[in-house]
Amino acid sequence: MNTSAETMFSKRSMALKPSAVREILKAAERPDVISLAGGLPAPELFPAEAISQAYIKVLNDKPGAALQYGITEGFGPLREWIIARMKKFGIKSGLDRLLISNGSQQGIDLVGRAILNPGDVVVTENPAYLAALQSFASCEAEVVAVGSDDNGMLVDELDELLARKRAKLIYLCPNFQNPKGTTLIAERRQLLIDIARKYSVPILEDDPYGELRFRGEAPKALAALEDELVIRLGTFSKTLAPGLRIGWIHGAPSIIRRLAILKQSTDLHTATLAQWAAAALLETFDFDKHIAMLQVDYLRRCDAMLTALDRHMPAGCKWTKPDGGLFVWLQLPEGVSEKKVFDSALRRGVAVVPGSGFFVGKPPGSFLRLNYSNQTIESINSGVERLAEAMKTAQRE
Amino acid sequence: MNTSAETMFSKRSMALKPSAVREILKAAERPDVISLAGGLPAPELFPAEAISQAYIKVLNDKPGAALQYGITEGFGPLREWIIARMKKFGIKSGLDRLLISNGSQQGIDLVGRAILNPGDVVVTENPAYLAALQSFASCEAEVVAVGSDDNGMLVDELDELLARKRAKLIYLCPNFQNPKGTTLIAERRQLLIDIARKYSVPILEDDPYGELRFRGEAPKALAALEDELVIRLGTFSKTLAPGLRIGWIHGAPSIIRRLAILKQSTDLHTATLAQWAAAALLETFDFDKHIAMLQVDYLRRCDAMLTALDRHMPAGCKWTKPDGGLFVWLQLPEGVSEKKVFDSALRRGVAVVPGSGFFVGKPPGSFLRLNYSNQTIESINSGVERLAEAMKTAQRE
Repeated sequence: MNTSAETMFSKRSMALKPSAVREILKAAERPDVISLAGGLPAPELFPAEAISQAYIKVLNDKPGAALQYGITEGFGPLREWIIARMKKFGIKSGLDRLLISNGSQQGIDLVGRAILNPGDVVVTENPAYLAALQSFASCEAEVVAVGSDDNGMLVDELDELLARKRAKLIYLCPNFQNPKGTTLIAERRQLLIDIARKYSVPILEDDPYGELRFRGEAPKALAALEDELVIRLGTFSKTLAPGLRIGWIHGAPSIIRRLAILKQSTDLHTATLAQWAAAALLETFDFDKHIAMLQVDYLRRCDAMLTALDRHMPAGCKWTKPDGGLFVWLQLPEGVSEKKVFDSALRRGVAVVPGSGFFVGKPPGSFLRLNYSNQTIESINSGVERLAEAMKTAQRE
Repeated sequence: MNTSAETMFSKRSMALKPSAVREILKAAERPDVISLAGGLPAPELFPAEAISQAYIKVLNDKPGAALQYGITEGFGPLREWIIARMKKFGIKSGLDRLLISNGSQQGIDLVGRAILNPGDVVVTENPAYLAALQSFASCEAEVVAVGSDDNGMLVDELDELLARKRAKLIYLCPNFQNPKGTTLIAERRQLLIDIARKYSVPILEDDPYGELRFRGEAPKALAALEDELVIRLGTFSKTLAPGLRIGWIHGAPSIIRRLAILKQSTDLHTATLAQWAAAALLETFDFDKHIAMLQVDYLRRCDAMLTALDRHMPAGCKWTKPDGGLFVWLQLPEGVSEKKVFDSALRRGVAVVPGSGFFVGKPPGSFLRLNYSNQTIESINSGVERLAEAMKTAQRE
């Protein structure tokens, strides 16, 4: 082609850089590698038999409708189930407040595109979910980050920031955040809502992991504290299976209407068959029991990782202690390069994700993201032990 | 919320108007209405049993992988099948030239977003597929249309247009176009490619209906005539079932790479399970036989509609004679209002789509889009008869 990339492609598209993490995840696929790198749920815990029965049922009972085009907002009975589920968590939703999406990633993308003009400011935690940063980049938005500690986003910093800078959207993952595994504590949640109201800035509450709390008391969802300003994303990716690609967006009716129009031009609707099958599944499946099983299992894996870190990591390392979700965030001793540790670990057959990619701007240190949900206890132990050796080697170098 | 729609939502989002067709399709859902309005394939022809068997197979054999996250480009074996299928039509594809999308609508959206900056010109046929126009609107692109006749886009007009106006993309649906049902003839195809090369403008070849040719010889696909400049969209929506939401984008490797990065931030990937099931289905399913069955059936429905139009329509009406696809395009006698015919038809229990929504700029007359794929022969006869009565009433008014 005569046209070069610069003249052919749009600015929004050129704003997207190929993700380094993607390359890492490819390396992690080598069969001899223990991957603590991805964010994958445990495939052996997928309710495959129940899912299979659900597909058989809808394809037997209503094949014509289940395989046909559907409405953009999503399949009614599935939305009713999600609405009832949210009610349990104190969130008042409704058919005019809920839109089915292709996983919660599409929720991030649709909300970003619906709200952000080029140059608009979106505020995130630092570090933050990489693919959300990518999505905001494709809106040509300016991402401004506020720091976080073990109790989540530093909302005081947010207040100061919004006092001097107009923002269009606040994005955060309040429960067992990706990459840190930390949770925004209750008092900061109320403060965050107060700040959002003060400056009239909508909040995008991304909650893929909330159901996976395996210890402690859950603070209220942001959407339970504020009806209008909070847009909440949920998904079955971590509770049923990611391969279904079913998520949802809850928000004020005016926002949901706008998102539905945008989704229609984006991909018409989410797969009818997957929605019908999910609805059929949830009609008879003991979702609470399944979630309880996941919580017990992930707690075991998480504790195995925390114990192994205690046992093997050299002095100067620090890590988060998650109450749920999939990740532990490991800070390296001062002066130790995450790149060196990463390379040395991969040579020892263990893959992790370097932390720098999750930061907006310069990282305040060296970090690694560790996943425990996708490995056995044995592999977690062995993976952490090899990682610790890699760390010691890197320290000596 | 304190923020008004104008301050809250992005320009790209406010550029999207709620589709009038959407409201019409809702009215068409009334059980007493014969709908010739939608663009739905015949649900009784979906290979539901074979699809069910395919889901059972993958969920039994490889549940962990089929329900897990997958790569953005799509499931390898499914892509291999599509590549082999395209080869039959003279298109040289390859794994680096193919990306799975959520139906071909997502192909339109991703290509638009990857190429079009606000204000950039995209050239379409006039009339054109409504949801493509919507998608380009959400890119804040300027849509400039060139006319068409029964042989498709007037490519001479395109040449003149591009001589005086720089365009970033040419969009068209060359086979059994939505809404007209017409096909771009072979000699215009070669001319179109020559023009695209002359001005270095990529062509988006949207071909959801090409497999549904029930008479005549198929001209070569644009992607078979030109390797680099043509981006081609395909889908299983009209051959297997729309509810799977599986489409694909074929193009030069540099374009596919860019689209994959964009899709990753958009929704990570298309549903793994649906892709695995489709691949398993196609391994054993006689796709050619199924397509031949669809062709025979749709030919019967199309001919029933053409015969009924011959029999019932008043003088001054004209309509297209499709060689495939789902639609007939009906031009009303001069001075007859499509709105009046539409209203009067709906009172008589038949729904159609007014043509004006498909035009860029002022329509050159009054038109209706009629669908024959989603009704029985009996309903087509009865629907066209009632529509003719509505027409005569509107003429008298």
